[in-house]
Amino acid sequence: MADRKKRAGGRSARQAERQRPKALSAAYIKRKIPVYNLLDEESLSLIENNADTILQEIGIEFRGDTEALDLLKEAGADIKGERVRFPKGMCRTLIQASAPKEFIQHARNPERSVVIGNDNMVLVPAYGSPFIRNVEEGRRYATIEDFRNFVKLAYQSPYLHHSGGTICEPVDLPVNKRHFDMVYTHMRYSDKPFMGSVTAPERAEDTVEMAKILFGVDFVENNTVITSLINANSPMVWDSTMLGALKVYSRNNQAVVLSPFCISGAMSPVTVAATSTQLYAEALSGMAFSQLVRPGAPVIFGTFSSSMSMQSGAPTFGTPEPQQVLYIVGALARRLGVPFRSGGGLCASKIPDAQAAYEAANTLQHAMLAGVNFMLHTAGWLEGGLAMGYEKFIMDLDQAGLIHSFTKGVDLSENGFGLDAIREIGPGNHFLGSSHTQANFETAFYRSELSDNNSFEQWEAEGGLDMAQRAQVKWKTMLESYEKPSMDPALDEELQAYINRRKNSFPDQNY
Amino acid sequence: MADRKKRAGGRSARQAERQRPKALSAAYIKRKIPVYNLLDEESLSLIENNADTILQEIGIEFRGDTEALDLLKEAGADIKGERVRFPKGMCRTLIQASAPKEFIQHARNPERSVVIGNDNMVLVPAYGSPFIRNVEEGRRYATIEDFRNFVKLAYQSPYLHHSGGTICEPVDLPVNKRHFDMVYTHMRYSDKPFMGSVTAPERAEDTVEMAKILFGVDFVENNTVITSLINANSPMVWDSTMLGALKVYSRNNQAVVLSPFCISGAMSPVTVAATSTQLYAEALSGMAFSQLVRPGAPVIFGTFSSSMSMQSGAPTFGTPEPQQVLYIVGALARRLGVPFRSGGGLCASKIPDAQAAYEAANTLQHAMLAGVNFMLHTAGWLEGGLAMGYEKFIMDLDQAGLIHSFTKGVDLSENGFGLDAIREIGPGNHFLGSSHTQANFETAFYRSELSDNNSFEQWEAEGGLDMAQRAQVKWKTMLESYEKPSMDPALDEELQAYINRRKNSFPDQNY
Repeated sequence: MADRKKRAGGRSARQAERQRPKALSAAYIKRKIPVYNLLDEESLSLIENNADTILQEIGIEFRGDTEALDLLKEAGADIKGERVRFPKGMCRTLIQASAPKEFIQHARNPERSVVIGNDNMVLVPAYGSPFIRNVEEGRRYATIEDFRNFVKLAYQSPYLHHSGGTICEPVDLPVNKRHFDMVYTHMRYSDKPFMGSVTAPERAEDTVEMAKILFGVDFVENNTVITSLINANSPMVWDSTMLGALKVYSRNNQAVVLSPFCISGAMSPVTVAATSTQLYAEALSGMAFSQLVRPGAPVIFGTFSSSMSMQSGAPTFGTPEPQQVLYIVGALARRLGVPFRSGGGLCASKIPDAQAAYEAANTLQHAMLAGVNFMLHTAGWLEGGLAMGYEKFIMDLDQAGLIHSFTKGVDLSENGFGLDAIREIGPGNHFLGSSHTQANFETAFYRSELSDNNSFEQWEAEGGLDMAQRAQVKWKTMLESYEKPSMDPALDEELQAYINRRKNSFPDQNY
Repeated sequence: MADRKKRAGGRSARQAERQRPKALSAAYIKRKIPVYNLLDEESLSLIENNADTILQEIGIEFRGDTEALDLLKEAGADIKGERVRFPKGMCRTLIQASAPKEFIQHARNPERSVVIGNDNMVLVPAYGSPFIRNVEEGRRYATIEDFRNFVKLAYQSPYLHHSGGTICEPVDLPVNKRHFDMVYTHMRYSDKPFMGSVTAPERAEDTVEMAKILFGVDFVENNTVITSLINANSPMVWDSTMLGALKVYSRNNQAVVLSPFCISGAMSPVTVAATSTQLYAEALSGMAFSQLVRPGAPVIFGTFSSSMSMQSGAPTFGTPEPQQVLYIVGALARRLGVPFRSGGGLCASKIPDAQAAYEAANTLQHAMLAGVNFMLHTAGWLEGGLAMGYEKFIMDLDQAGLIHSFTKGVDLSENGFGLDAIREIGPGNHFLGSSHTQANFETAFYRSELSDNNSFEQWEAEGGLDMAQRAQVKWKTMLESYEKPSMDPALDEELQAYINRRKNSFPDQNY
């Protein structure tokens, strides 16, 4: 590291980088609307008590990580084998003693830095698909080129605040090396914040090392520049891979999303209250552990909840039961005082049709009202997460735009009330040309670039396209007009040198 | 009427009719969830004050109806020409003195009767389209056969509680006679509650007369069996046609939905607060008038709010601003103490694609949380209401099903919490075969009959259909399996005799 600090371009290049101006849109949403409370405080408190019972009586398994077990034991947990039982209230106390209620995740362009927690909302692309789909090619395995394309599209959108993580799996690259290319792509082709690799502790280390090159060692030591997704192996298991990645990030003061991944009926009971309780218990244990690794390291209470088709066993999306879980768990996160991750344009549909849209909207709109702080899977998700859709991505961006407008709340100023306009126009006339309309129309309504509001005749004359076909035109145009954000060549070189050195340190792996 | 009472089948047939049992599903939704409060009470009170200012200073025009002006003058309003100005609080006082907070709209099958108001929710088909669309035929003018088809489909759905009104315009029938066929179709092909004709006062009279045949004269005098849609001619005008229909229904103790129809930017100012205030003022004046016609006659505070594309002037749907208006106006209705109509599967899309679905869901889900009591346009709406879609109807029914599950709220019983199941399964195992899952899986999750949750491979093997194509199969199957609800032949004969007599009393009209 000392080596890097001395390099010619190094510190000054990074400073110049971090002072670069211009962001065309707000870096994240500051909500001006209240949340929806599905349950009252008494019911929430019942869930908290039951979660305590799970933690105390049944416990959580921390697998394959003796260091974790030692830390937990020292903190007062009861350890039997890999089963960890927590005295009542222990997890909450640990979390509330040190976990931040909100934190800044810095971007290399400081105007893109986001605040995660409280009334803030950060919209993040979908994550983890091995396949992509688009209208032209149908469905096929994803490549690093697809990955770059989605990073470019997310960079260009005013409605996504984050570059995401494994937007899709670049399966054309070796498993043990692809994290370098993914992290580099986020760093180089975007200037928004990004997520780190979690598939092995050493890949998390690589992410942190690359972040130190990009932001500087001192800066990374004192600031959060990476968020990463740590999934629980529900029910009630943290596995060694995830614990390993968690330890790397927390130790480096980087943020982790502790995310139980529950398909009710399979990984949790079929009922909403039970699923919410189990999710909460699992997340509590993970967040508490992170605070033992490094008190004050940022955590996000994450949930991924789906119900299950009782015919096929497949997960279902946009259905009422996970919507209810979303509201309950969001309220529990607020009571605990930590940022909350959930939501997104989830769907089971294979294609960007009406099913995809109903299901996506049914999650997105509720996630908005549930006060989600970190909305993973905002855009692109198809087929239960197996495919990343180019057109779906564009359609979901438009929906993310709606959320920007709704969350601004209602203008109750004199102008907002427009009484003078109503006086001026009076009964039976129209407001099209009124001075109030002229003064406000530019900003009055959210303008979709994808919805067709024209007459039937005009729509037909323009080819009678459906929304997915319009989205196809849009992503192609966006990719054509993409321009890389600038980066000091010395920094870029340093990143690439690190990657080459590391890649050469171990052989290709078949996959 | 004395004549009808004496007829052979008459009274006993009607009694038998009204005692017929079996309803396969709940007649309406009893909400077990709280509403979402977008604004606080203070802000709502500000809107109420501003609406009073509109009513007092600017006033509302009651056009072409001297009887209305006389009634309003007598009640204390200030009349200048057709402009009616209301002293502060007058409308609210009139409404709160006599309008019911909830009322029963009776169906000919008493198990289908619905309660409108308070925590109840009645889902109603879309209304008023001159065109229909389906996958096979594309878009064409609607006929009485289409009308019958939609009545049949609504009758078969467990998720619609109401047969609706002008589901589509049967343009193959003369304008001055088609109301007979529409009302008769609701009466004969369904046993759910229905809406009456409003296109002329005498057509409203015909609706009431036919209802007297179906339900009995005494029953109709003392009970509400018709709901009808009275649109304001926004801004701030009630026209003579609507006032005429209103008077007929209110005088007969039948329900009216007083519905300002506002496209913000055209019929109201572009801002949300202004639109909400104007809608409220308009509806107040209409509801107050109905209470002058007959104190205690049931009213529903209706709104239809859309924003406008500032490029084309066309209405847009599923956008944030009307969502906000929906929450505000719903809260104002609750404060006033009257049932509230809004919402539905609104969209601007010409076809049942992703745009249609995003937009529909973006209204439906918010209407659910806003506590809408009478959800007009729940199913079928396309192209800003110009077309009724067969496939869209089926897709929206599925979405209406979701609402049934969500509004049941969360089961916080011992079974709902499922702690024993979590104890039984423990970390790392699955819940698929647990006794809790076995006991609950039948009812645990909403089951869509239209969403495809299967694997990509299975979906592809089954033809790779999109949701609209699956909906096409579904409505055809439903129509094939449709069976008319029974009706005493004497009643049917009496209805048809009334229709024939009336139809023959005036010549065909070209249209």
